[in-house]
Amino acid sequence: MIALGVDPGTATTGYGIVKDSPDGRLKKICYGVIRTDPKTPYSLRLKKIHEGITDLINQYNPEVVAIEQLFFNKNIKTALSVAQSRGVVILTAALADLDIAEYTPLQVKEAVHGYGRADKVQVQHMVKVLLGLEEIPKPDDAADALAIAICHLHSYRMRKFNVL
Amino acid sequence: MIALGVDPGTATTGYGIVKDSPDGRLKKICYGVIRTDPKTPYSLRLKKIHEGITDLINQYNPEVVAIEQLFFNKNIKTALSVAQSRGVVILTAALADLDIAEYTPLQVKEAVHGYGRADKVQVQHMVKVLLGLEEIPKPDDAADALAIAICHLHSYRMRKFNVL
Repeated sequence: MIALGVDPGTATTGYGIVKDSPDGRLKKICYGVIRTDPKTPYSLRLKKIHEGITDLINQYNPEVVAIEQLFFNKNIKTALSVAQSRGVVILTAALADLDIAEYTPLQVKEAVHGYGRADKVQVQHMVKVLLGLEEIPKPDDAADALAIAICHLHSYRMRKFNVL
Repeated sequence: MIALGVDPGTATTGYGIVKDSPDGRLKKICYGVIRTDPKTPYSLRLKKIHEGITDLINQYNPEVVAIEQLFFNKNIKTALSVAQSRGVVILTAALADLDIAEYTPLQVKEAVHGYGRADKVQVQHMVKVLLGLEEIPKPDDAADALAIAICHLHSYRMRKFNVL
């Protein structure tokens, strides 16, 4: 299974595509960020996010788009802005007939690190280890997106073997 | 000019399409709501909103999509949900190469009623009067969407004649 993890934002949307093998090993396919220019009209920024995610779907054929659940950020303005981009990402997946999988930040941490209170750096380190990368993926939004994709593949495997 | 006003939401997205004549009179083209079923997956609800707005754009050829500015609702959960639908509506307009016009709730009230502290019923009454309707448009989301479209057409006219 190929999973596309997405960490949506207006200026920077992280993505990470991960594949799991029958032997359970995870393989990074690609990761990165879609950046939008604050000087361009907001609607065109959302369009760029939509087009970027659509291109990834067309190129890598993921079976699922994994995303973090909506959470109540302390900064309400940021939270509302993220929510708008999140709506665009979910719509983009739906237009490609892909399933959406949602996970809480706690679930992502537990799936990747085994410990829900792990900090950001610990989770990023485990992303590197699990994917056999030479370095911690940069920028943070891309590492976060990879973590969400890994979380989905782990959860899927657990459900498949009735471990959960 | 034809304006499509939209009042986005997850369960109910109101829309109202209004045309202004060279003599300044406003004419209602149509109004209504796009409803989505809470029992269907969230991504398909966003897809239904996208398809509904796309159909309206294709059928009535508006030159602009007018929408209220994002505001800080007391109910953060509702605000985040509205923000996601709002992102979908803005993307839908961008995919149709339409301009987006944003107005604050105060601007909408002032444009429609002439008084920024008018209540909901007063604004709805003025929507009825300005469009020469026999009754106040129902439901509220459709009336709100018509008010936003009227606001845009008034503001546009003011800008055109350099009154603002």
